Amino acid sequence: MTSDDHADPGDLGLLAPMRGAVHRTGDAAVLAAMLDAETALARAQAALGVIPAEAAAAVVAAAGSGALDPLGLAVRVRAGGNPVIPLVEDLREAAQPYGSCVHRGATSQDILDTALMLVAHRTLGPVLADLDRVITGLTRLAAEHRATPMAARTLTQQAVPTTFGLKAAGWRKLAVDARTRLRAVRQALPAQLGGPAGTLHPLERGPAVLARFAAELGLAEPVLPWHVLRTPVADLAGALAFTTGALGKLAADVLVLSRTEIGELTEGVGGGSSSMPHKHNPVRSTMIAAAARQTPALAAILYGSLAAEDERPPGAWHAEWQPLREALRLAAGAARNAAELVADLRVHPARMRANLGVTGSADAAPYLVDRALKEP
Amino acid sequence: MTSDDHADPGDLGLLAPMRGAVHRTGDAAVLAAMLDAETALARAQAALGVIPAEAAAAVVAAAGSGALDPLGLAVRVRAGGNPVIPLVEDLREAAQPYGSCVHRGATSQDILDTALMLVAHRTLGPVLADLDRVITGLTRLAAEHRATPMAARTLTQQAVPTTFGLKAAGWRKLAVDARTRLRAVRQALPAQLGGPAGTLHPLERGPAVLARFAAELGLAEPVLPWHVLRTPVADLAGALAFTTGALGKLAADVLVLSRTEIGELTEGVGGGSSSMPHKHNPVRSTMIAAAARQTPALAAILYGSLAAEDERPPGAWHAEWQPLREALRLAAGAARNAAELVADLRVHPARMRANLGVTGSADAAPYLVDRALKEP
Amino acid sequence: MTSDDHADPGDLGLLAPMRGAVHRTGDAAVLAAMLDAETALARAQAALGVIPAEAAAAVVAAAGSGALDPLGLAVRVRAGGNPVIPLVEDLREAAQPYGSCVHRGATSQDILDTALMLVAHRTLGPVLADLDRVITGLTRLAAEHRATPMAARTLTQQAVPTTFGLKAAGWRKLAVDARTRLRAVRQALPAQLGGPAGTLHPLERGPAVLARFAAELGLAEPVLPWHVLRTPVADLAGALAFTTGALGKLAADVLVLSRTEIGELTEGVGGGSSSMPHKHNPVRSTMIAAAARQTPALAAILYGSLAAEDERPPGAWHAEWQPLREALRLAAGAARNAAELVADLRVHPARMRANLGVTGSADAAPYLVDRALKEP
Amino acid sequence: MTSDDHADPGDLGLLAPMRGAVHRTGDAAVLAAMLDAETALARAQAALGVIPAEAAAAVVAAAGSGALDPLGLAVRVRAGGNPVIPLVEDLREAAQPYGSCVHRGATSQDILDTALMLVAHRTLGPVLADLDRVITGLTRLAAEHRATPMAARTLTQQAVPTTFGLKAAGWRKLAVDARTRLRAVRQALPAQLGGPAGTLHPLERGPAVLARFAAELGLAEPVLPWHVLRTPVADLAGALAFTTGALGKLAADVLVLSRTEIGELTEGVGGGSSSMPHKHNPVRSTMIAAAARQTPALAAILYGSLAAEDERPPGAWHAEWQPLREALRLAAGAARNAAELVADLRVHPARMRANLGVTGSADAAPYLVDRALKEP
Repeated sequence: MTSDDHADPGDLGLLAPMRGAVHRTGDAAVLAAMLDAETALARAQAALGVIPAEAAAAVVAAAGSGALDPLGLAVRVRAGGNPVIPLVEDLREAAQPYGSCVHRGATSQDILDTALMLVAHRTLGPVLADLDRVITGLTRLAAEHRATPMAARTLTQQAVPTTFGLKAAGWRKLAVDARTRLRAVRQALPAQLGGPAGTLHPLERGPAVLARFAAELGLAEPVLPWHVLRTPVADLAGALAFTTGALGKLAADVLVLSRTEIGELTEGVGGGSSSMPHKHNPVRSTMIAAAARQTPALAAILYGSLAAEDERPPGAWHAEWQPLREALRLAAGAARNAAELVADLRVHPARMRANLGVTGSADAAPYLVDRALKEP
Repeated sequence: MTSDDHADPGDLGLLAPMRGAVHRTGDAAVLAAMLDAETALARAQAALGVIPAEAAAAVVAAAGSGALDPLGLAVRVRAGGNPVIPLVEDLREAAQPYGSCVHRGATSQDILDTALMLVAHRTLGPVLADLDRVITGLTRLAAEHRATPMAARTLTQQAVPTTFGLKAAGWRKLAVDARTRLRAVRQALPAQLGGPAGTLHPLERGPAVLARFAAELGLAEPVLPWHVLRTPVADLAGALAFTTGALGKLAADVLVLSRTEIGELTEGVGGGSSSMPHKHNPVRSTMIAAAARQTPALAAILYGSLAAEDERPPGAWHAEWQPLREALRLAAGAARNAAELVADLRVHPARMRANLGVTGSADAAPYLVDRALKEP
Repeated sequence: MTSDDHADPGDLGLLAPMRGAVHRTGDAAVLAAMLDAETALARAQAALGVIPAEAAAAVVAAAGSGALDPLGLAVRVRAGGNPVIPLVEDLREAAQPYGSCVHRGATSQDILDTALMLVAHRTLGPVLADLDRVITGLTRLAAEHRATPMAARTLTQQAVPTTFGLKAAGWRKLAVDARTRLRAVRQALPAQLGGPAGTLHPLERGPAVLARFAAELGLAEPVLPWHVLRTPVADLAGALAFTTGALGKLAADVLVLSRTEIGELTEGVGGGSSSMPHKHNPVRSTMIAAAARQTPALAAILYGSLAAEDERPPGAWHAEWQPLREALRLAAGAARNAAELVADLRVHPARMRANLGVTGSADAAPYLVDRALKEP
Repeated sequence: MTSDDHADPGDLGLLAPMRGAVHRTGDAAVLAAMLDAETALARAQAALGVIPAEAAAAVVAAAGSGALDPLGLAVRVRAGGNPVIPLVEDLREAAQPYGSCVHRGATSQDILDTALMLVAHRTLGPVLADLDRVITGLTRLAAEHRATPMAARTLTQQAVPTTFGLKAAGWRKLAVDARTRLRAVRQALPAQLGGPAGTLHPLERGPAVLARFAAELGLAEPVLPWHVLRTPVADLAGALAFTTGALGKLAADVLVLSRTEIGELTEGVGGGSSSMPHKHNPVRSTMIAAAARQTPALAAILYGSLAAEDERPPGAWHAEWQPLREALRLAAGAARNAAELVADLRVHPARMRANLGVTGSADAAPYLVDRALKEP
């Protein structure tokens, strides 16, 4: 690439208002997580006597010096095809005379996989907090409107009555399911340390270092190096696609019910328009819907990388990096937007009643709401 | 559609040798499962006094009469867009004078969703048995070859030595992960019964009927009707994409290692060729690889259907049916092919040793094998 | 697979009311197309003196004897992983004493690729005819309603007025674009004949046989055998995904505009419901929407198969077969449903006017309609 | 979002070494293209007397002042869900007293769609130049090695001989096909100008302004505003997925043929490894393979956005932005890497001959090469 490739500051979010957790997933965050991995490795090795304590201190100091910058590394990443190669070069230089103690026995994938798991772990914490807010808000809405009648609609036509509380309880159920899945995946996110071929060679005291390395980082200790056993990435793929889809159901309903002609719901803070400033657009639902449309395809890329040849595949691994972080961002954005949406949602029971043009009983709906809200 | 649309016997498998569980997922199996759902509903309603016992008997007799055929229904399915509408018409006719007791209070989606969960449940049983065989075979291979040296390969190049046992232990780990995920999903597959809008209306004694209906069928009882809360389908999507991908890793490695120039593995029963009968093609790996390439995209369709508007969406639900069953078939085929592949796999340690052109220690590999095999 | 795998009659369409061209794409049609390929090859070789005229006659007679059945072949397809291997065995047997003249010099992929191109060619003819009907109907609607005012809606909110004619002209534009793309792809669909490795070996008089073979079948003659140069399949993928998406826009609008609360459009023949017979469901739009949700993912599988190693890849080729035919069916179903939908669509200008709650001029809309209708 | 969301510099490429055209597709490039669209609109309107010439000059000056920065806009983009809303605010402020002449009559989508078409146009120019280099290099390789024998491999097994020239001619054919498709799509990329609902209202002299606007920008003039007629985006999706897949075939072959045990090809400049500096990794092929694995899924998102309701859909449009630019980058990276790969590729005919363990004639291969190279 010629130098003008580097003139651009990259993606700052101009085209991705549906993203969240931007500062937890950007290049600076990834770089910080790679440095965390390198320093955790040095610390673990020092604790076990594999490298001198002074060496570990030098690595920590080098990593914390701020001398490494994402843009500089990004420029150099193309040559070897992964960001760890230039990172290790710089870190070795900065940690002199202990350069040879940097990245001792590790392979690029050990550092980058670990860093991405750290990024996922750090991103999912706030996502789970946002889901808590979503669930709290929907619990309130479901309880408050457990018997508020409105039309159930099937294949676009009014069918029989339901209650808004039952609808909200359904949204809540999906959010609870998303939280359950994300929590389980987050808790299992493993550190990666296997050496160049996943055999622990040439790591001295490999098993002990691995255990300590994982503990240092607060990640799970894997049974085997998982360079080509991509369960953690596939599990993230599934849980993230589930999360945007689950919140996408909420958004899809809000979009229908806030249509001008229906008017049963309104987003609390509507977005304007560059040409029609009076318009009250359901911007948060739109953002969630946009996230829900992208994540399944990104998950398909990640599931596709399970079938990878050898001890490190030429392409399947590399194809994970960007889709994984984009899926994290889209799920984070959907969760944040959903939390805000639910907190501010305006419900119009009178309009629901006025629109209701079908007969039938919704008597069991409050029962179902109560039953659903018992689920924590 | 004109009548010539029906001259064709449909898909019998000519273009899908990578499928499995064909008889458990075909139209006859789906029809049988729909009839199981209708009879379970009648039985549950009779047990609770909602319909007379004679009516339930009539429904059971009508369902068992064999008068309903898949092709006849398939022809009529286009008018209303789902197969339950003509099924119920026929069943009501056949159950006279108790026609009005057929499908009492239910909606099409109750029957079809329940039927597809039954199909999934019935398909996954044998898939899990095949995974057991895969795991048993790989346990044997891993133990037997825990110290058999071979080249680890990264980005297509020999890197350092590993052992074949460690490779097999990795394949096994993925198969164990697939089994864990499929088991969990299978156990949670729920019955569906909510009435036209998921409110239980107009089901008499709805909650009790739902509980009994699920118990009759051996499916889980859902907290809420899940017409538009598609967690079960999304969970299947993820677990099936995981399974084909996990087995796809095994296949990808066998394909590389059975290359003419590498020759470290051979499939026990190779396929021939229409033009080169002497060739020994790795057919089973090829079939698994072909399944692994398709399932992530099918899963993306299913995840995409989570974001569905209203109490029944016009399209998102319908778009699930065929991809869900195709994903089941591809996972079933991959599991069956993997079981056969592992049972017959020929390992060539001498060739592994001869190919090994890099130095380094694989001393920790047997340790890792032992550690991995401790996982049940 | 055990014998019970064959008890099932397969997919007859019970779960796929959104499909079309079923009889043109089913296993019987694929078998017929494979036999067409084998007989065209024999004829071409006889015409060029490569095999005796009697041999060609024997191949033609054997192919026409009806002795080959799709189910029988489907059972045997798993062993070698493709349907041509058992087909050639049977055909050689049936053409005795000219068995050795069957499939002379060809490879399985020559026959199956050619057969799938024939199937695509035969399917796309009626699809194009349906698109013609769609375009004719939309031309009429656009002209008739060029100045019929209705609300334009952006982000679910009424924005400014438009006309229904402009909406119809937009739908028409997409249908025209789909027709243009499908026509171009159909016209270029090539025959396949390259021998086992795409070198024309061991085909006697290979180039001449290839030219004649293609001419016999009405397919294009390729510059190179395209066993691993999958332009034709990728082009089909794109054009089919485009077609279902283009018609999916029409369906998406009809679904919104036929909502109970909007009521500006009604499908001429609505579908009922198993529980609510009074309902008038927009079934055709629903079927089109369901097709549009599936085809992009199928196209992604097909695009993914471009990156295929060697002269025949182990998996990428096999992964094309079923998605390609399913994409053909979904596009065919969407086109048929769209033709019927447009022919019968009921427009309610009074309701459009009554709903219109925003001000502004739609004066240029009729101009745009006229301009768009000039495009053939 | 809290302020810490903005602390991160975003994506600079650390995780995307397989990307190209970074500076043509980043936020700064998109911002520049949006400003180009706004100034072209002002110029066109001034030329047609819709706004004063001084106003156009003020808009041009404001746009060129550098006062607008991507990060500042990215922070504000979340409120309204698209970047044009804050851009227009700032531009109006900067162009005082002609603020009301900025963006006159246009809608956000007019500007952003036009900008993305400009970005695509500007990106595809160099991509086409890279494809020219690929084709030139492969022409040379095909001609030079038209008769260089090597093994053809099918389903991983040596089949019969072919020549390296025929393989190179096949790669070339795919590159030519990609070039043809990209050229056609690029030439047709349209400007967008329709006003808030695509009716040209409230644009004064709308048709004339549209024509002049498109001409100013060097983009095609569309027959209709295409806010919800997404042919240009779908065509880009198809052509970009085709391009990465076509180059992915080249990469897949290079990856196989540069395996340690095969050794028939070597990348000219191999990548190292953080742990094994002696290794010669096929980095460029790996990067192309990684791009080819991602683009089909991104294309599926874009095809999926065709089926969009209303005059501006809540989600389908927004879901296009990032996948479209990522697909452009992946295609650009694949083309650049392929050009470099082909220029430097080392061919080892002696090794090809030594590996060749099957018999048969490749006599027709040189003929096929000559035939293929006649295609421009």
